[in-house]
Amino acid sequence: MAMWLEPDPSQLRDPHGYSLKWHFYPPDVLPLWVADMDFPIAEPIAEAVRERLGQPVGYPPASGDRALLERIVEHQAGHGLLGLNPENLLLTSSVVPGIYASVLALTSPGDEVITQVPVYPPFLNALEEHHRLARFSPLEPTPQGWAIDFDHLERLVTPRTRLLLLCNPQNPTGRVFRREELEALAEFALRHRLWVMSDELWADLVFEGRHIPIASLDREIAMRTVTLSGPCKTYNTAGLGGGVAISHNRQLLSALARVLKGLGGHPNVLAMAAWRAALERAQGWLEEVRSYLRGNRDYLTAFLHSRLPQVGYLPPEGTYLAWLDFRALLGEGAHAAMLERARLGLSDGRAFGGYAGWLRLNFATGRPLLKEALERMERLVAALR
Amino acid sequence: MAMWLEPDPSQLRDPHGYSLKWHFYPPDVLPLWVADMDFPIAEPIAEAVRERLGQPVGYPPASGDRALLERIVEHQAGHGLLGLNPENLLLTSSVVPGIYASVLALTSPGDEVITQVPVYPPFLNALEEHHRLARFSPLEPTPQGWAIDFDHLERLVTPRTRLLLLCNPQNPTGRVFRREELEALAEFALRHRLWVMSDELWADLVFEGRHIPIASLDREIAMRTVTLSGPCKTYNTAGLGGGVAISHNRQLLSALARVLKGLGGHPNVLAMAAWRAALERAQGWLEEVRSYLRGNRDYLTAFLHSRLPQVGYLPPEGTYLAWLDFRALLGEGAHAAMLERARLGLSDGRAFGGYAGWLRLNFATGRPLLKEALERMERLVAALR
Ligand SMILES: Cc1ncc(COP(=O)(O)O)c(C=O)c1O
Ligand SMILES: Cc1ncc(COP(=O)(O)O)c(C=O)c1O
Repeated sequence: MAMWLEPDPSQLRDPHGYSLKWHFYPPDVLPLWVADMDFPIAEPIAEAVRERLGQPVGYPPASGDRALLERIVEHQAGHGLLGLNPENLLLTSSVVPGIYASVLALTSPGDEVITQVPVYPPFLNALEEHHRLARFSPLEPTPQGWAIDFDHLERLVTPRTRLLLLCNPQNPTGRVFRREELEALAEFALRHRLWVMSDELWADLVFEGRHIPIASLDREIAMRTVTLSGPCKTYNTAGLGGGVAISHNRQLLSALARVLKGLGGHPNVLAMAAWRAALERAQGWLEEVRSYLRGNRDYLTAFLHSRLPQVGYLPPEGTYLAWLDFRALLGEGAHAAMLERARLGLSDGRAFGGYAGWLRLNFATGRPLLKEALERMERLVAALR
Repeated sequence: MAMWLEPDPSQLRDPHGYSLKWHFYPPDVLPLWVADMDFPIAEPIAEAVRERLGQPVGYPPASGDRALLERIVEHQAGHGLLGLNPENLLLTSSVVPGIYASVLALTSPGDEVITQVPVYPPFLNALEEHHRLARFSPLEPTPQGWAIDFDHLERLVTPRTRLLLLCNPQNPTGRVFRREELEALAEFALRHRLWVMSDELWADLVFEGRHIPIASLDREIAMRTVTLSGPCKTYNTAGLGGGVAISHNRQLLSALARVLKGLGGHPNVLAMAAWRAALERAQGWLEEVRSYLRGNRDYLTAFLHSRLPQVGYLPPEGTYLAWLDFRALLGEGAHAAMLERARLGLSDGRAFGGYAGWLRLNFATGRPLLKEALERMERLVAALR
């Protein structure tokens, strides 16, 4: 076990207040909320940024560093998304601007937009803030994991439905959708002539099965899809930024670019250097992190099954997130109870589409800390009896 | 003379294609266009970024690094803009998003917006792309330099006028507006109940007089003004990003924040580290650069007066830009002629409000290169006879 994967907890709260994750709650609270990992970034990334500082840091070409764009094309090809050129990429300052720009570019106020829930809160915020009507397709717990209810999905569609927002791998459930599921979603989107935004930021943090970009299924769905990607989850570089909107349909990218023009900023040269180094030189780091995270996932699963069986939980196939149903134990006030009585800072399920009593746990930390967190939960639950 | 201020011209075109300025035109063209300097950044800035990489680079607090915000408050106080707190600042990914967000937040489609011309093109683009009606107040050449025609300004106002866009120090004329001028503008804005966006990005590159923030004049104008600032012109860090919208009126900032939400991205941790180091530790670098630029300005002025007297020119009091009237010599095709026949890449005056035949020259380069550029102009003009 590499030491850097189990950082000293007393060191994680940096003295400068730089880390939102570690400074949001009081010092005795263990933070397991916002999606940062507690591991240091890969050394080749830091090295590339340091080297980049020796070159000019004035305005870069507006479409971004060509070498980075080529690496992104190759990386997508590695996931089976073929036939892309740098012209099929639109760099964004991070991934969230791609979500907002997709909503604004592909729909109008009053249009209906379908998304699976629970889901990453900015999907819902983008719709609400811009007066698009969210239509929820709830993921259902099944023995095979969280599943899309396709009959219900069908009943959601109206003439005003314009866009499907997909998160795959899925935040917060950790589902990695299988080919048959994606084919059914693609068929659904095509039959109803919907645009598709597929946020695939978590694609490289998959433990079981394999990530399939929905736009890789066939040409027809590719022409209706904007795929979002970025370096920040995989390489733990959220503060450095970097995101990309990808489409075989360049008209969709132009529409997103018009929305972002002037507001989205120009490419950041250090973010580009970091991202390129991540794709070129951080694969060894990533293998270690992924296997450590898989171990954490398995540890968490075993703990919950044996010692907290009352918590609703289906093991994630990817991401470093666990979606926990505490309703039976803590009711709708689960988030506050966990914070106040167990001193654990998790994400409140309410923000994910109204899931009061549910909590999202980020397990990208050292195993000793994860163990400590689970033991705190266990003590809280024991005290309830 | 520090050697780093006269970089080897053969080295300026970096081998990676990183610099837009140096790669936009063919290799035999001297680029004197986009507003980057040809000088390396201050070492303390690079050092601070390198150090920052040793700390967590996950999500930072949403409002930004507190220490940076405090430095910005102090920096503005140094210019006479007093009474600010970190809560009066809204960080943006660079300055242009502050321009667009001001236009979108403070006006509606069809509203009229006044700006001096010639002016930095994104002012005009923001208005046009968002269907705001630009009303031009042309700066007039006078023996005291470029001047606002206040009678004309008065005639521009209608009941639909909502916003005054000010650029001070002014791009491209290099005017640094005097207190009486700013007082007259403020009185004008208050009497007609206009909002004011004052882009003061060039405030620290002033040779004569002293920069005065319009919002520093009195409380009443402060409550109607959004001031924009950032590190990129002064410290030559455009590719690192960083910008700030400042207002004593926090409702204005909230309105800008709503426009930027989701599209503008979150603060970049390396940009913040660079900017903070610039304000804390690059003042020595800045003094040297400013005095070198003043020397270039004087060299340029002497050259034009003695050897190219047919070129219309009023020496800038700030910025590193010279606004040149080539209409008498080259007519409306001045930009193409300069490019094709003198191999000089300048900015075309057309983009600054329809100034065909005018060119903007960026003199932030080594003096030998500036001399070479001016001699190429002189040869072109000689060949016309
Ligand atoms: C699905 C998903 N999309 C986007 C983001 C945010 O990405 P960024 O920080 O690049 O804007 C996250 C962060 O957790 C996420 O889970
Ligand atoms: C007046 C003015 N505002 C804004 C900018 C652009 O700033 P940024 O690169 O920070 O968006 C420039 C660049 O030259 C400028 O001259």
